[in-house]
Amino acid sequence: MKALTSKALRYEYCQTTEKWRVFLLNQTNLPHTIEWRRCETASEMVEIIQSLQIRGAPLIGVGASLLLGHLTSEGLRGDDFYSTAQQLTDARPTAVNLQHCVQRLVQCYENAGPDAVLPEAIDIFEEDQALCQAIGDAGAALLEDGENVLTHCNAGALATAGIGTAIGVIDAAWQQGKKLHVFVDETRPLLQGARLTAWELQQATIPCTLICDNMAASLMQKGKIQKIVVGADRIAANGDFANKIGTYNLAVLAKHHKIPFYVAAPYTTVDKHCPNGDAIPIEQRNPEEVTGFGNEHWAPNNIGTYNPAFDVTPAELVTGWILDTGVISDPAKLCEENS
Amino acid sequence: MKALTSKALRYEYCQTTEKWRVFLLNQTNLPHTIEWRRCETASEMVEIIQSLQIRGAPLIGVGASLLLGHLTSEGLRGDDFYSTAQQLTDARPTAVNLQHCVQRLVQCYENAGPDAVLPEAIDIFEEDQALCQAIGDAGAALLEDGENVLTHCNAGALATAGIGTAIGVIDAAWQQGKKLHVFVDETRPLLQGARLTAWELQQATIPCTLICDNMAASLMQKGKIQKIVVGADRIAANGDFANKIGTYNLAVLAKHHKIPFYVAAPYTTVDKHCPNGDAIPIEQRNPEEVTGFGNEHWAPNNIGTYNPAFDVTPAELVTGWILDTGVISDPAKLCEENS
Repeated sequence: MKALTSKALRYEYCQTTEKWRVFLLNQTNLPHTIEWRRCETASEMVEIIQSLQIRGAPLIGVGASLLLGHLTSEGLRGDDFYSTAQQLTDARPTAVNLQHCVQRLVQCYENAGPDAVLPEAIDIFEEDQALCQAIGDAGAALLEDGENVLTHCNAGALATAGIGTAIGVIDAAWQQGKKLHVFVDETRPLLQGARLTAWELQQATIPCTLICDNMAASLMQKGKIQKIVVGADRIAANGDFANKIGTYNLAVLAKHHKIPFYVAAPYTTVDKHCPNGDAIPIEQRNPEEVTGFGNEHWAPNNIGTYNPAFDVTPAELVTGWILDTGVISDPAKLCEENS
Repeated sequence: MKALTSKALRYEYCQTTEKWRVFLLNQTNLPHTIEWRRCETASEMVEIIQSLQIRGAPLIGVGASLLLGHLTSEGLRGDDFYSTAQQLTDARPTAVNLQHCVQRLVQCYENAGPDAVLPEAIDIFEEDQALCQAIGDAGAALLEDGENVLTHCNAGALATAGIGTAIGVIDAAWQQGKKLHVFVDETRPLLQGARLTAWELQQATIPCTLICDNMAASLMQKGKIQKIVVGADRIAANGDFANKIGTYNLAVLAKHHKIPFYVAAPYTTVDKHCPNGDAIPIEQRNPEEVTGFGNEHWAPNNIGTYNPAFDVTPAELVTGWILDTGVISDPAKLCEENS
């Protein structure tokens, strides 16, 4: 068996202990500290996912299924297997990839037996890499040389096992030689844009400018944004989609300024069983995320907050859905193509 | 002469030194530290204004003119008077109140002599209190019992010598017994909403909820916002206005969601000589405001940023201009009423 490596996840063989080990890059400490953390139990993985040490709809699906495959290879069976699968599925409610991936391993366990689970998890990892590349290839043609592209949160290599979804599209266009400039929403409250996307783009030497979320409208007003590309945590059957809070705001701004607005995601993000955005569960998170960041606590004590992790953008505000199967502009085709 | 006191500014007589002294509440340390800072020179005042220890278009006008009045009462004359007036005027470019107030003292100096300057500055202070009350009285009728009101940045007692402009409207409606709930945009990068507005509302026991700027759209989508009221740093003759970055974003969202959008300001914020928003100078501020806050630096080193302090909202997105003279819904009347 060969080792797996991505910018966010590693599965490696330790010669000393003669065991395979799962490692995750702790994204809460980026960009200033690179800490690879070993994960040995489902409880650890749930804590890692809930505290956003790994995040991004594709990545939490890949990460959770890799751990479940690993544990199964080490003897996880029967009721323990099922309760572990459920525990991982419940770690976060909005992204559907987590449910899809774990469910796939459960079916594999039932249909092909426990020994098939780790190879299936490895397939999921490698498929995600290929899905990202396919999304990038499909979407790159939408970006033209010299354009300024706005993105929100992080839908890059740190959100997937591959080159990313929204950032994958930008990266693929960049690799084709198109000169792009990326404006990066910092993405309060947890600043995934400022910490993760800005860092990824800087490492990839793609020119970028960091802005506060409330500055995007001003750039659009001045004609400085030609395209908007974001990721998704769940796409409903009608094309409505959930993504990081602030995405819907951008979609409204895009409509007002007549700027094409794209969502990029693998087919695993499409939830055929979810009829529309109203049916997507939205996670509410801790008030402390809003009242400060890190060691800075800037709001008055005991102030009330509202802190949904995601919002829902209705299909009518979406110019196109960039999937691994191609770019769809009619949401009625979303489920057809992936049926 | 009697002492002047507001929530942000004090002019007091010291028995020991037998001198009058100007004090300003250092707003950069709010809400956790209440530090009244004495200001003795124009250079200090410029530093206080540029570092946002005092901010808010009306307040920086009142504060700068109080210091100029005080210095004139202590013997500032001739070229020194004029260069000090110019130094204060140049402290920040966008808010027109600062120019208006200082210019008024220059005219007073020329027309009535140096002894008239401090009394004129005191008039400016007291007039600002009255203007705020008049704005509040004019606007309170626009807010109905049980409504949720969204505001941005801080246009309260910490931005004026009185009860504030946008917050003055909310406060006046609240004093009339209307049960309101205020949603407060945190207002990145300098978090005046989270630090100042949330604190003011909490002290006034007006129910409020703090949100990140990118969450406002989600609340509007859910029908949770009935009115939006913001302040202004400069209103052009055609009704376009500059206000804290993020205001234009709210105006676009308000249009999309059909939510009334009001701007509240004293007549001193209207600049008859500025034909439209394009002519309003917009201050660009330090990148470090975007890359972190306080002791937290969360972005990668050497990342590019965009950091305009203000944006411009076009008149067509404004439902009404709440002035001290009343509520205007036709911008053509803005200059008529104040001519």
